[in-house]
Amino acid sequence: MGLKLYGAPASTCSARVKAALEELGVAYEFVPINFATGEHKQPPHISRNPFGQVPALQDGDLTLFESRAITRYIARKYKNGVTDLLKQSDAAAGALVDVWMEVESHQYNPAVSPIFYQIFIVPLFGGTPDQAVIAENVEKLSKILDVYEDRLSKSKYLAGDFISLADLHHLPYTFYLMITHPSLVNSRPHVKAWWEDISSRPACKKVTDEMAAVANASK
Amino acid sequence: MGLKLYGAPASTCSARVKAALEELGVAYEFVPINFATGEHKQPPHISRNPFGQVPALQDGDLTLFESRAITRYIARKYKNGVTDLLKQSDAAAGALVDVWMEVESHQYNPAVSPIFYQIFIVPLFGGTPDQAVIAENVEKLSKILDVYEDRLSKSKYLAGDFISLADLHHLPYTFYLMITHPSLVNSRPHVKAWWEDISSRPACKKVTDEMAAVANASK
Repeated sequence: MGLKLYGAPASTCSARVKAALEELGVAYEFVPINFATGEHKQPPHISRNPFGQVPALQDGDLTLFESRAITRYIARKYKNGVTDLLKQSDAAAGALVDVWMEVESHQYNPAVSPIFYQIFIVPLFGGTPDQAVIAENVEKLSKILDVYEDRLSKSKYLAGDFISLADLHHLPYTFYLMITHPSLVNSRPHVKAWWEDISSRPACKKVTDEMAAVANASK
Repeated sequence: MGLKLYGAPASTCSARVKAALEELGVAYEFVPINFATGEHKQPPHISRNPFGQVPALQDGDLTLFESRAITRYIARKYKNGVTDLLKQSDAAAGALVDVWMEVESHQYNPAVSPIFYQIFIVPLFGGTPDQAVIAENVEKLSKILDVYEDRLSKSKYLAGDFISLADLHHLPYTFYLMITHPSLVNSRPHVKAWWEDISSRPACKKVTDEMAAVANASK
């Protein structure tokens, strides 16, 4: 029995897991969860993810949730001689992957996700984006990206001169950020080069093409 | 040269790292960073943590930041026959440790930290805690702890019947929550038993005693 990824086509957290699966060339079945009918809050999905969110991964008897935990599982299970997205065989390199994964979780994500939420989600419920919230988080994100610019002037990717989950975890929200605020990335030469590198990888392109198709279909 | 942990005595993120170090019996030197003089935003600390925060860990030539990345490094480097806080030798157990570490990061922490901030930090700057923010997050946390109650009715600790980083990461904020809103924990029998178990471990007690001493000294 193969891997089943329960998610939503436009979900950033589902895309985060897809990026890891695609980068490692792992076959999987994508099972869409229908948020419109509340499928995410009902059995059987609530037994896959007790918080009623997506994604969830099923691998035989094992069911996992939280996108960044799922990607770690995938990275450990399917690492190969070419691609090792956690680099735990090297204590220092592995530690830096963890550092920059945590930076994504606790610096980048808290600033970028409210921008995404205001611009893409609030209108879905008939609301008007709160420009003050957007401006406040654009300012936060700008300072965070200054740190990224400095880091990426010293190494090609966030954890070092190798691609890792730390980079891939940035894919979904940065895809949306390039639609709403591309200058935040493009005004920083090293961040721009990094984004062009990761977003043009075949695995990442496949994932963002799917996100773009959903975004266009909903227009 | 031994480990140096740069932090602040009352900092929840510093305490998170201390808990892992103490649980594994690792010797370290704690180097306090003076926030009152802005030491955290200046060299040399800004080169340890480019976001100007605590903690940071120095281990020889390697400098790490982000508390949850530091604890992973410590758990991998110092695991022994008795204590393995990541359980990566067992793919399923290791994955569940990751799941519940991510739950702490992306469910528990975003609800508990604003409560802590309003009650303990806002007054330090002469402000008045925003009761609406506290109430909103107490309600969120209550629903999250319902999921914990269910989980902890099936296993002694969050990832299974073994202590892991997933449990220890909850120590600092839950210590403060037991001062401000103990009923959130005490009204849920399995959460209460879990908290009594982890908070009474000698390693955890040492860390919370240090936090209590700082809290009392600042009264």
